[in-house]
Amino acid sequence: MKLSRAFWQTYKEVPADAEVPSHQLMMRAGLIHKSGAGLYNYLPFGLKSIQKVERIVREEMNRAGSQELLMTMVTPGELWKSSGRWDLMTEMLKFKDKRDSDVCLSPTNEEAIVDIFSKGVKSYKELPCNLYQVNTKFRDEIRPRFGLLRSREFIMKDAYTFHTDKACLDNIYDEMFKAYERILMRIGLEFVAVKADAGAMASSDSKTHEFQVIADTGEDDLILSESGYAANIEKAETKRSPLDWNKDQKEISSVDTPNMATIEDVCNFLKSPQHHSLKSLVYKGVSGDEETFVLAMLLGDDELNELKLNSYLGTDHILAATDNELKELQLEKGFIGPYGLKKELKVVFDGEVNLDASYVTGANENDKHFEGFVPSRDTKDYEVCSLRTARVGDLDIESGKPVYMKKGIEAGHIFQLGDKYTKSMKVSVLDQNGKTIHPLMGCYGMGITRVVAASIEQNHDDKGIVWPVAIAPADVHFVVIAKSDETKEIAEKTYSELLNSGIDIVYDDRKAGPGFKFKDADLLGLPFQLVLGERDFKEDGLLKINRRVDGATLKVKPEEVATKLSELLKTQLALEDNTVTDKPSDPFGGA
Amino acid sequence: MKLSRAFWQTYKEVPADAEVPSHQLMMRAGLIHKSGAGLYNYLPFGLKSIQKVERIVREEMNRAGSQELLMTMVTPGELWKSSGRWDLMTEMLKFKDKRDSDVCLSPTNEEAIVDIFSKGVKSYKELPCNLYQVNTKFRDEIRPRFGLLRSREFIMKDAYTFHTDKACLDNIYDEMFKAYERILMRIGLEFVAVKADAGAMASSDSKTHEFQVIADTGEDDLILSESGYAANIEKAETKRSPLDWNKDQKEISSVDTPNMATIEDVCNFLKSPQHHSLKSLVYKGVSGDEETFVLAMLLGDDELNELKLNSYLGTDHILAATDNELKELQLEKGFIGPYGLKKELKVVFDGEVNLDASYVTGANENDKHFEGFVPSRDTKDYEVCSLRTARVGDLDIESGKPVYMKKGIEAGHIFQLGDKYTKSMKVSVLDQNGKTIHPLMGCYGMGITRVVAASIEQNHDDKGIVWPVAIAPADVHFVVIAKSDETKEIAEKTYSELLNSGIDIVYDDRKAGPGFKFKDADLLGLPFQLVLGERDFKEDGLLKINRRVDGATLKVKPEEVATKLSELLKTQLALEDNTVTDKPSDPFGGA
Repeated sequence: MKLSRAFWQTYKEVPADAEVPSHQLMMRAGLIHKSGAGLYNYLPFGLKSIQKVERIVREEMNRAGSQELLMTMVTPGELWKSSGRWDLMTEMLKFKDKRDSDVCLSPTNEEAIVDIFSKGVKSYKELPCNLYQVNTKFRDEIRPRFGLLRSREFIMKDAYTFHTDKACLDNIYDEMFKAYERILMRIGLEFVAVKADAGAMASSDSKTHEFQVIADTGEDDLILSESGYAANIEKAETKRSPLDWNKDQKEISSVDTPNMATIEDVCNFLKSPQHHSLKSLVYKGVSGDEETFVLAMLLGDDELNELKLNSYLGTDHILAATDNELKELQLEKGFIGPYGLKKELKVVFDGEVNLDASYVTGANENDKHFEGFVPSRDTKDYEVCSLRTARVGDLDIESGKPVYMKKGIEAGHIFQLGDKYTKSMKVSVLDQNGKTIHPLMGCYGMGITRVVAASIEQNHDDKGIVWPVAIAPADVHFVVIAKSDETKEIAEKTYSELLNSGIDIVYDDRKAGPGFKFKDADLLGLPFQLVLGERDFKEDGLLKINRRVDGATLKVKPEEVATKLSELLKTQLALEDNTVTDKPSDPFGGA
Repeated sequence: MKLSRAFWQTYKEVPADAEVPSHQLMMRAGLIHKSGAGLYNYLPFGLKSIQKVERIVREEMNRAGSQELLMTMVTPGELWKSSGRWDLMTEMLKFKDKRDSDVCLSPTNEEAIVDIFSKGVKSYKELPCNLYQVNTKFRDEIRPRFGLLRSREFIMKDAYTFHTDKACLDNIYDEMFKAYERILMRIGLEFVAVKADAGAMASSDSKTHEFQVIADTGEDDLILSESGYAANIEKAETKRSPLDWNKDQKEISSVDTPNMATIEDVCNFLKSPQHHSLKSLVYKGVSGDEETFVLAMLLGDDELNELKLNSYLGTDHILAATDNELKELQLEKGFIGPYGLKKELKVVFDGEVNLDASYVTGANENDKHFEGFVPSRDTKDYEVCSLRTARVGDLDIESGKPVYMKKGIEAGHIFQLGDKYTKSMKVSVLDQNGKTIHPLMGCYGMGITRVVAASIEQNHDDKGIVWPVAIAPADVHFVVIAKSDETKEIAEKTYSELLNSGIDIVYDDRKAGPGFKFKDADLLGLPFQLVLGERDFKEDGLLKINRRVDGATLKVKPEEVATKLSELLKTQLALEDNTVTDKPSDPFGGA
């Protein structure tokens, strides 16, 4: 591709709405064009990178035995109504077509795949069944942001599997897990597979993992330990470092705490460490029309993980009680506690609360707290479960090693769905015994366009993008600063030879100065730059090869350029591809 | 692909709504699944064929110097408003997103590409510019039909070019024309490039061609002549075979024609051939808020081509005058004529009317006609242009040879758009002299999914589909009827060998009888069937190869199967690919 003929423009200015590096760099490097809020056109160089990711994803999906199909982007509302999700999918863009039928833009395709499956498959003999698509999705986020990391329209690979039993689901889930690892490893991304929360997608006891690409700009908090523990903070289970408990078993006594409605104020006043107090949080659990109130109790310096509470209660969702609701429960905001409740309330202690230790709690009376509250002694009915949010300083439960936190970009998410959809959509097959069963399902998503952006988040410097070979828009950026006809001829000849040897080369033949050309080359960030400079070439008759990732260079004769670059590309791909265990040595002798 | 593991089902029943062979066969052969009105999911074998068409299209677009990008499927309403098409695109599905903004599903992408172009290109130096995408489109037809031939959601390749001058546009238009020919030739389709009507897409004097795949089920009528003339009937210009004129120059005289409001009745009554009478049609031309009435005059046995009248008048659209409008014009329905009009009316004669001959016309009075009307003598002001619809029996204007008619499926349509969009969207570049100009545009569409269906319309028999090698879902259908372990082993070994030699093979290893398997193989219609039958193999130790298109067969030893099939596939591809001029000889010695 000669740049004089290419549709490619770069920009110096960073668009005002571009907050993260991938968004800024993709706009500046002419990879994407914004057509509206959360809507991006993929320009030629951007699309080439996306297509390379698609190719890798297809290869690994096919290898894992998944078959490709393609579902419609517009799906009929009746399908979503049959599963009960028509009114639940908040980010689904719904509308009427000209036939006055309800339709929507697919944000995901469980319903569609179950519909397809049900038409064809009738017997266990045809299971397991593993299908995937690479398709455009639309999620109508109110606040799309971060370019391709959270756009409204995006390209996704989604796979769905069907099984007669859990053993088979587990088996294929593991295969898909491995395929996901291979995809991200081939691209050379630093990532971690973390335990995640299944949210509205599945029952809470199903296996689910997120594949998180590590990046400072990630929106997810990950709890990791050296010994390999990895979980999204939403799901993370850790234990606190050992604590000194207040073992004083004196009677409960009331203490005046005027205007001290926070744990901090009360503990400062009582000269007590915060973990010698308990935090009392009132929540409303909602399931359909049913509402239940619960009092969640945590150590004073811990934070509630709402997903855990919701999952423990088995409710559709939970909400912090409003002031009015607190009044109806005859509770005093800021002074709530589990002892002396005026109305009955389910009480749940977090697992880190020492039930036999003594705590400060609210006294259910304005401006008053209790001292000497011992949970096991002073609570009539209570339950215990894990409620707190994991944090740095905690210990890994299994290894006892301290955990640390990283930010991640969710590139993939795999779920065991169970029979949620086959049941609600009344789809069954005959099992080995001639009995009808609802097949179990798994679903497996990967954001293709998000992977491209995540790779840039992880691989860039202050000059621009640094592409891994596997998904670079092209292999080599040929920067030519030629004045004499002789040098121009060498340039043309080299270009032809590189094309003939199958190297995907971007040839900067534009009329522009070296500064301009090098800036553009660094910004676009192809793995190698091949430089033919008039002055240097006159001196030594050599061309220079720069490796973008570390600026390592070497010189090469014109007639050896094609062979050398082919070798370098092959080696660099192997160095970056983490599925390759037997690494070649670095031809630049370093990095 | 082993069929025991494939997601594939065939059906005996033809769905009630499937009227044409491609729709029936794609449903029966398990290539597509209907998800709603005009909405089809592409199942694995269907998708493979679609992807092969996409690959050919990409290769030919790249060869023609077009660069691929990908635009969003959802586009902001403001873009369409800037070109003035927001309210004109009848098949566009428009709605509000959660941000309460107008958005739509792109039925085409002129506005989006002009927006992209305008962001980057500022100077003639960057022109011409040639961009394409392969993308999902949505046209919200009220009555989608014929499966993939007229679905609401479909895959289309659309290209757009930008130019400083008409010479450059013509040049690239011709290159794209050739690329379109090559695409359809490579798939082996019988097609014709016809002159077409540009409709609302461009000004009427721009070049535009449709690429029509010949098929009885086509929705377009094509006028063709042996000498190469080819046009959509909407645009076709032909001449009538020589006619005997009524040269009688007697005065106009009124004749009673009670209740004879049709040409047929009047001519029967007057014992006059229909082409000795004139048909008088009153139309209203609408342009914005402006309305003009016109009296269109044709030979009595000709039909008006409304597109021609509209194009001649330069109006947005035309409508036949209503009874009320006729009354206001003081015209007598069934008895209208150009002589003795009570209100002034523009009169236009079709070019086939002999202005000096004598005709029967309406007398603008109830139950009365005129005889002896001579247009040049008896009309005050009139205009002449081509208004009639071409038909079989006409002659090609240039060669004088008779024309004939065929039905076609519009697989592609290419247009010269001129500056319609760059002007309305106020996009300009600097030309060589530093002057701002609105670049000229071309646009080039091809229906990917429609090409697949059109190929089936042209290539099928009563047993099923007959795929050309170029776009078949796979190369070979391996039908195995094995009972003994020995034969089963041969089957497995052959399958591995074929896979290793790169042949895309569908291996029917299901537990089913020969009748069932052969029916499925014929229905799916892969180019070759490889048959391993227990009894035959026991007899001669040979496998049989069937060519699907003509049932030609040959026998081959197990160890030679892979080599033979590779050869056959290569030869068959060359036999079917009409860009190959040096055809190999037919290995089956016939067809």
